[in-house]
Order: sequence, then C-alpha cells, then structure tokens
Amino acid sequence: MPFVYHRTVRFADTDAAGVVFFANYLALCHEAYEEALSQAGVELGSFFKASGLVIPIAKSEASYLRPLLPGDKLKIVCTPALLTADSFELKFDLYKLGPPEKIAAKLRTEHVCISSDTRGRMPLDPLIASWVKAG
Amino acid sequence: MPFVYHRTVRFADTDAAGVVFFANYLALCHEAYEEALSQAGVELGSFFKASGLVIPIAKSEASYLRPLLPGDKLKIVCTPALLTADSFELKFDLYKLGPPEKIAAKLRTEHVCISSDTRGRMPLDPLIASWVKAG
Amino acid sequence: MPFVYHRTVRFADTDAAGVVFFANYLALCHEAYEEALSQAGVELGSFFKASGLVIPIAKSEASYLRPLLPGDKLKIVCTPALLTADSFELKFDLYKLGPPEKIAAKLRTEHVCISSDTRGRMPLDPLIASWVKAG
Amino acid sequence: MPFVYHRTVRFADTDAAGVVFFANYLALCHEAYEEALSQAGVELGSFFKASGLVIPIAKSEASYLRPLLPGDKLKIVCTPALLTADSFELKFDLYKLGPPEKIAAKLRTEHVCISSDTRGRMPLDPLIASWVKAG
Repeated sequence: MPFVYHRTVRFADTDAAGVVFFANYLALCHEAYEEALSQAGVELGSFFKASGLVIPIAKSEASYLRPLLPGDKLKIVCTPALLTADSFELKFDLYKLGPPEKIAAKLRTEHVCISSDTRGRMPLDPLIASWVKAG
Repeated sequence: MPFVYHRTVRFADTDAAGVVFFANYLALCHEAYEEALSQAGVELGSFFKASGLVIPIAKSEASYLRPLLPGDKLKIVCTPALLTADSFELKFDLYKLGPPEKIAAKLRTEHVCISSDTRGRMPLDPLIASWVKAG
Repeated sequence: MPFVYHRTVRFADTDAAGVVFFANYLALCHEAYEEALSQAGVELGSFFKASGLVIPIAKSEASYLRPLLPGDKLKIVCTPALLTADSFELKFDLYKLGPPEKIAAKLRTEHVCISSDTRGRMPLDPLIASWVKAG
Repeated sequence: MPFVYHRTVRFADTDAAGVVFFANYLALCHEAYEEALSQAGVELGSFFKASGLVIPIAKSEASYLRPLLPGDKLKIVCTPALLTADSFELKFDLYKLGPPEKIAAKLRTEHVCISSDTRGRMPLDPLIASWVKAG
C-alpha cells in the first residue's frame, strides 16, 4: 500500500518566480518519506544518523509538471519498492488538490544501505526491508 | 484568541549540529502566521504579493531555549497585537510537545504596512486589522 | 566552454546527518546557472520573472557520489547544450576540491521555454540561445 | 577589526514576494560568521559539532531596512564582542552594494558556551575567545 502525505505550500518553499523552487519538490517528498518511516515505527533520529549503517540517497529524478503556489494544498503518494538486498527506490506522485485534482510532479529516489566506515554496501535492516516490501 | 499551529520537525529544518538551524525557527513561526491568515479568510497569494499595499516584516527577535530534533512534535502559539494604525506585532511561543511539554523558543515579529511604490506607511487593510484585533 | 563556479559548503546547506541535504545539491547547481547567466549579461531579475516568456525546469536528475561537509570547497562545472529550438539541458559536475580533487555529484536539468499565459512552447530568446550554444 | 564577507543574492534565498525571505537574512549572516571562524583557523566541522563544548545561539535580533533581490551584491560586516567569560555577541551590518551602497539590515546574535551533557555554562575555548577579542 502506498503512503499518502498531505502538506500546504509555504512561502519558505517558494522563490522569486512566485512558485515552489525546483529543489524544494525533493524536500517535500523527503517529508513524506520521513512521515512514512515514522508511522512504520522507525525512530527518525537514529535512522538518519551520521554513523553506523546509513542509507544515503544515491540518485534522484524529477519531472516538474505544474507550478505550485503559496497556500496550495498537496497530496504526495509515496510507493517504495525493493531493488536489491541492499537498496530500494521510492516513487512519489505529487498532486495539487482541486477540484480538479491535478498531478504536479513525479519523482523517484534511489537509496543504498552502506557502512559509514567502509562505504561498502550492507543488507537493509529488517524493519526497513519489511517497510519497503509492504509498500 | 491566539492561534495554534502544529508541525513536526523535518530533516530539511536541521543542520549538521543535529538540530533545527536557528534561522529556521523564524520560518516555522511564519508558517503559523500563514495558516492563521488563511483560516481568517485572507488569500495568501495576493497577501504576500510584491506590489500594491504590502506588509513586510520590519523586525524580528528570537530567544532559543531548547534544541529541536528531527521528528519532534511542535505547537506554535501565535498572538497578534496592534501597534499603530499601520503596524502590528506577532508573538510566538514555540513548544516541544511531551510529555512533558516544554517551551523551546519565544519569537516576536513586527509588521509595517507600506505602499510598494512610495515605501510610505499606509493604514492596514480592514480584514488584516480585524484579524489582528481579534488575536 | 563550460562555466566554472566555486562555493564553500555552509551550515544552512546541511542536515542532521552532518552532510549537505540531497535537495540542496540542486540548489548549489542552480547558483552556478545564475552566475553563468549573470556573467553572460542576462539580467537575473527579469530572467526569472513570473510572467511573459519563462523557462521553467522541466526535469532534473542527480547522482550523489560523495557526502559534503560544512567548510568543504566545491567546484561546479556547468555545461549547457541545446535540445530543440525551445529547450536546453545543463550538465553539472560537482567536485570537492582537494588535494585530491574528487567528483562528488553529477546532475542534469532540462529547461523549456514557454509563454506564462498559454503554457505553450516558445522559441528561446536569442541571448539565451547564444549562451547555450557557446557552452 | 570587523570581518567583511561578500555574497550575491540567489534565487534559493528569495520567496514569492520576489525578495529575500526574512529568515534568510539570518542565514546570510551565519555564513559570514562561518567564514570569519574559518579564516581565524577554527575547524568548522568540529566547531559546530553536536557534542562536547558547544556554542549555540541563544538570541537573535534583526531590523530589516531594505528588500534584497536576486543578483544583488551584498557586503556583510561582522563585529564580535565578549559579553562574559562564557558568552559573546556578533553584530552584523548588511549592505547592498551600489553605487550608492545602502544599509539593508542590522542583526545581532548572542552565543553562549555550554556543555552538551549538562547544558551548564562553560568558559569559551581560548581560540574562540581570542577571535572574539580581536573583533
């Protein structure tokens, strides 16, 4: 089941062109990811820690389909999928609520589990792996 | 009646010291202000426009009382008060939810209504003035 | 000739994992783009305006190869290329200065010229087109 | 001697009103502080660490005197002064370069040295104390 996150566009998200700055679409989707992990019982403080087993983002892709304005109501649908034993992807569909509701962006991130010491790949923690598989 | 806004701390709010970056406390309080205006019927897109009658922030003050971590649940209480016919202040009390609930910061901003053309002071719009007086 | 931009990593660029937040790699590259346009004689205020002929970012891709820490010295190499008469791409190679110098990320953005009224595609302004072709 | 830092306003600094977001004036001044520390021989990675002897910002004040636009060239003058054996202030004068050069904001931050374990006040490290006294 995908995870659904709601968010209102804020002024701090926008730039002088009057709309959400392109880099901030990624930040909005990361919020959905954080909330999904939190509701799956993952403790955020230790999950995003700097040392031990870490899961940095290796790749991101975004298609920007529609500008977003301050006050716009958003729905972000996050769908995780396992890639290998040590990596997964997240797909994000970002909708501007309506009526009519319209797709505003599609994003994808790729996450790889590594040891912060050796930078070598490591199997995903069981809690994370089961969250990904349930997605 | 003061306005109450709830927010979870996100990774994008924090810096390498592991806690919310000091400038972002101001951004968090501005979100509360935006939400309060929105619920009072103010259309955000035109309120924060670049031209005509504008209400820029003239001053800010903040006391940082407690560090905030990713995942922390916040409650921000916003209390407006009229200063003159063309200016008002907002006081923000930012709490970290518990138990026990603890005050994490106290902020104050000062807002002055001006003409974007002349930069001269102008009386507040009646809708904004009544929102401030009700606060 | 590609354009070269230098930048030091700041605390505001980082998150609680101690390194630059993944979305901020895009913001860093956008700074290089702004500086390149500025040095090519483009007036930034009107270029990134909200109305008339606008050139929003339609796509972005990023490969994150190395974490970046506060104080790290960066070199960003920006290479533009024409895609069609109304669109271009920018490739960014982001290096962490050394010794030894190391590639830290590779990004790509796609830009499409449209009318802000009709949202239909429009030919690039000659000044922008010549900047892209010279890249 | 005060420390002088130069910076160009970027799109990521601005919001939908077309000018630098009020919270980002604080971030701009923090960049000047980071650069001043770096040039004084302070290693930023360990200075802004999360544990041990830490120097969080306890207070900030800002007077916003002039809007700042994308592409504006800024000069930030940072003047440190000792308050007590365990605290100091930084005053920032932020100028928009001209001609004519104009003051755009005045900020002040207050920094207190504490133990990250006990949260009790601790004397400033000699390197920091001498940097503050030289300011």
